[in-house]
Amino acid sequence: MHFTSEQRLDDGLIERKFILDEVPGVLWTPSNSSTPVPLILLGHPGGVDKMYPRLVARALGCAANGFAAATIELPGSGNRPRLSHVEQARADLGQALATGAPVGEDIVDRLVLPLVETAVPEWRTALDAFLSLPEIGGPVGYSGGVISIGVRLAVVEPRIVAAGLFAGSFVPRTIINEARQVTIPLHVLLQWDDEGNDRSMALKLFDAFGSKEKTLNANMGGHTGVPQSAGEDADRFFARHLT
Amino acid sequence: MHFTSEQRLDDGLIERKFILDEVPGVLWTPSNSSTPVPLILLGHPGGVDKMYPRLVARALGCAANGFAAATIELPGSGNRPRLSHVEQARADLGQALATGAPVGEDIVDRLVLPLVETAVPEWRTALDAFLSLPEIGGPVGYSGGVISIGVRLAVVEPRIVAAGLFAGSFVPRTIINEARQVTIPLHVLLQWDDEGNDRSMALKLFDAFGSKEKTLNANMGGHTGVPQSAGEDADRFFARHLT
Repeated sequence: MHFTSEQRLDDGLIERKFILDEVPGVLWTPSNSSTPVPLILLGHPGGVDKMYPRLVARALGCAANGFAAATIELPGSGNRPRLSHVEQARADLGQALATGAPVGEDIVDRLVLPLVETAVPEWRTALDAFLSLPEIGGPVGYSGGVISIGVRLAVVEPRIVAAGLFAGSFVPRTIINEARQVTIPLHVLLQWDDEGNDRSMALKLFDAFGSKEKTLNANMGGHTGVPQSAGEDADRFFARHLT
Repeated sequence: MHFTSEQRLDDGLIERKFILDEVPGVLWTPSNSSTPVPLILLGHPGGVDKMYPRLVARALGCAANGFAAATIELPGSGNRPRLSHVEQARADLGQALATGAPVGEDIVDRLVLPLVETAVPEWRTALDAFLSLPEIGGPVGYSGGVISIGVRLAVVEPRIVAAGLFAGSFVPRTIINEARQVTIPLHVLLQWDDEGNDRSMALKLFDAFGSKEKTLNANMGGHTGVPQSAGEDADRFFARHLT
């Protein structure tokens, strides 16, 4: 992990940008902590620079709990090389949604599965690097989308002990089947009136999770309109499970 | 409203039992308040004495927000005269659930609609009495089940400005249709693995609500296993909307 910049934000957060195996990312650590802190991995739909204001706000929510937060760029997004097959699937999805045609499983598979296959090993490599830093101690949570990446990570990565997932993207059937193997505590956010999402698929995924402790928190406000109170509920979920 | 007993509980709550038009009830007010306080009406499935420990716990949650809480007995429950047609419908429902037969709409209508028709005017009369007391000022919220009673109250009673509803009972189709007229902020609790409930009906009801601000909070733990954190989320919902 090669740090490329470091700055102290107004709110007592230290922000470091880095490159790890050509994948850019950002690490936020509370500046006032004298002991190693828990870590939350911040998932997002791609484009760290574009998502930066919301990512910083989420990192501040983590810091309020005394936690570090980190993110890496999604494959094919930001400055990373485009993935032409994923771009084609995204175009096909856009066209299906625009014309009101049913979204075929093959489109969802072609859009999401390559991201899962590529991003999950990258997140695990990044997690190795984060946990090698003296200021990061764990335990580790995953927060956000792409929800299919969060599901796969929850299945294969035993260091992740709790996940707050954003059910805001289409989910391949194979991921819904994998969800039965997830047993960690889950807090799932769903925007009920998210027109670019398949609500029944999100409910099927929530039902499939094998976790004994799982919460579905569904709200109005469209894809990007998660109410502040719902964000605070998610912060409390992590406070309960990472401290 | 004729008060029949008054005691001060350990936690600084004054508990008064009362009779109003032959309907028994309980009123809990914070003892440390010098100004008129908001009020939460506590709905329940019937049997105030049997439900007493949980009702007191909920009243304490209200008092922590500085709110009074009150409940009245459900028609046909506790010491009130049985309603034979409702008892018959309850037996029919129990038999359908025991044999795995589909629960017919006629059973749900015969079970729930008479309770709604009788209980809603009783709640409104009780609300008149509560609000005539100098220590109760409003605004007023409704919290709990029977959810169909909460829906009807939210439609017809303008003094109720927010509702935290427990989606733990079958809902007649006519009530789902009425739900479109509900516009106040809603916080709906659903126990995802509640075997004696119809989850798809609960989701249909949540979808039907006309409120711009509505939250579905679904958890595991069976009908009576609402997690403590979910109860606290509901308390915070009322803190946001009644203060």
